[in-house]
Amino acid sequence: MFTPTQLLEKVNAALAALPLPAAPEGLYAPIVYDLSSGGKRLRPVLLLMAYNLYRHDVEPAMSAALGLEIYHNHTLLHDDLMDNADVRRGRPTVHRRWGANTAILSGDAMLILAFAQVAACPCPQHGRVLELFASTAREVCEGQQLDMDFEHRTDVTEAEYVEMIRLKTSVLLACAARMGALIATAPEADADALYAFAERVGLAFQLQDDYLDVYGDPAVFGKATGGDILCGKNTFLLVGARARADRGQRSRLDALLADSTLPAAEKIAAVTAIYDELGMADACREAIDAYYAEARRHLERIDAPAGHTEALWAYAASLLDRTV
Amino acid sequence: MFTPTQLLEKVNAALAALPLPAAPEGLYAPIVYDLSSGGKRLRPVLLLMAYNLYRHDVEPAMSAALGLEIYHNHTLLHDDLMDNADVRRGRPTVHRRWGANTAILSGDAMLILAFAQVAACPCPQHGRVLELFASTAREVCEGQQLDMDFEHRTDVTEAEYVEMIRLKTSVLLACAARMGALIATAPEADADALYAFAERVGLAFQLQDDYLDVYGDPAVFGKATGGDILCGKNTFLLVGARARADRGQRSRLDALLADSTLPAAEKIAAVTAIYDELGMADACREAIDAYYAEARRHLERIDAPAGHTEALWAYAASLLDRTV
Repeated sequence: MFTPTQLLEKVNAALAALPLPAAPEGLYAPIVYDLSSGGKRLRPVLLLMAYNLYRHDVEPAMSAALGLEIYHNHTLLHDDLMDNADVRRGRPTVHRRWGANTAILSGDAMLILAFAQVAACPCPQHGRVLELFASTAREVCEGQQLDMDFEHRTDVTEAEYVEMIRLKTSVLLACAARMGALIATAPEADADALYAFAERVGLAFQLQDDYLDVYGDPAVFGKATGGDILCGKNTFLLVGARARADRGQRSRLDALLADSTLPAAEKIAAVTAIYDELGMADACREAIDAYYAEARRHLERIDAPAGHTEALWAYAASLLDRTV
Repeated sequence: MFTPTQLLEKVNAALAALPLPAAPEGLYAPIVYDLSSGGKRLRPVLLLMAYNLYRHDVEPAMSAALGLEIYHNHTLLHDDLMDNADVRRGRPTVHRRWGANTAILSGDAMLILAFAQVAACPCPQHGRVLELFASTAREVCEGQQLDMDFEHRTDVTEAEYVEMIRLKTSVLLACAARMGALIATAPEADADALYAFAERVGLAFQLQDDYLDVYGDPAVFGKATGGDILCGKNTFLLVGARARADRGQRSRLDALLADSTLPAAEKIAAVTAIYDELGMADACREAIDAYYAEARRHLERIDAPAGHTEALWAYAASLLDRTV
């Protein structure tokens, strides 16, 4: 079985070798720029690891793996435009460098390339692979829409929030794991278990992101804490705090978040103090642990050599091991 | 064989019956709005007519036909955003009604839906159908990029212009005709001939649009003439005029187009006068006739009952019969 690092190298080599034309440069240069910006290549690596549970050579699954990575980068490109974000992975975003119209059109072309790569997968389950990809991509759009809808709401429930992050981020990881199993013609029950495993890992990962933004060690986490608080973003912590708060805590919380005159450090400290009063750190860690445990249980259901599933678990754990 | 009107009704009924969820409304309402705005449904009707040359029942080709229509509407939605257009088919554009972010995300979801519909086509040539669709969609992006590139250039050649409109508009018509043949498992030579036929019809149609914008009868054409001149758009007339102009004509032409103080009617009349000096009306009509004749020759190559191909020809002719 290949290690995640070996698979990452294979994915990066295959991405670099994609036969993209040079012209029109205005269309393709931003795509090359975007795909070369690095990252963990989580989705293709996960797909290839799932495939690798059942088959030795990963080449037959590579085009589908690239499809998911290109798709993921397409969503980031268009999300960055919608969020008006300036920087992605330490470099200017495509719309900042080339303008909004380039971001729209090159992003569209990436979505087309993603489908072409998934469709090029030489496997007997071809139809089901495509259907899985198309339905997942639609769910990701729904998640993004819910995220935008929630920006204007202060009454988002925990269940709604979890469903939003499930759609926006987890289903694509789940799709990657299931797609690897499908291409390998693994047993149906394994494909289901791998889907559920990766979905829970995704939820744990996203909640951990929410947690670390407030309680993380900036030196380890790699960015300053409190960013979510400053932009009033709905997170598991904020949504949960609103649900648990009494009337007084709720009005203090809303007043703090609405206050644009407060210095950043004070605002972060005051909101964090309310989170602490309400036990949100523990509540969030418990939710993470619960998803983590569920992920583990689903992984144990699958019918592959124990050493192989342990490698997959170790990979998932390495993603989550950022000093929660 | 079904008439174009019958096929149009079938397409509209199938579009209205698409199983789209109601929520999140912010994602799906703009899609329903966009797909219900009418139009000639040229691409799906052409696909079904091509299929109908070989097979009686058109149902097996319907999902692919819908895929092309949804794809076409996706391109219009994103193009309208990029062009900052206010109106489409007599109604506010999606970005004008719901905002740019909605236009981006709902447009992305339409592209995903389009692929899902094409992928759902139950036919033995499934892989080739998808490959044709993906490569065509990429060409359409290239055409749109070239169109944007050309806005900043005054040295676009006739060949470059024709290649741009071929990519931006003709290849999707050609794809529709070939896809109908592929799904019907028509002879390979017929699929090629139908592709070439529809490509030439598309070129003739686009050049006719350029012609009518200057020389059309507003009462018949349905809009005021001269719009392309006023916005300095590259058209077959402008590109051809620049190529044919001597130094004096060229500088008069460029000065007129750059003059933002000139009343609209005067500008249109003066530019049209230069087109007339250079014989552009005849040149454009000759180019249209040549593509039209090529289209006819390609259609005559195909191995289907003559009555059927005549129906297809009559449909193409009806599209072009707008009093050139």
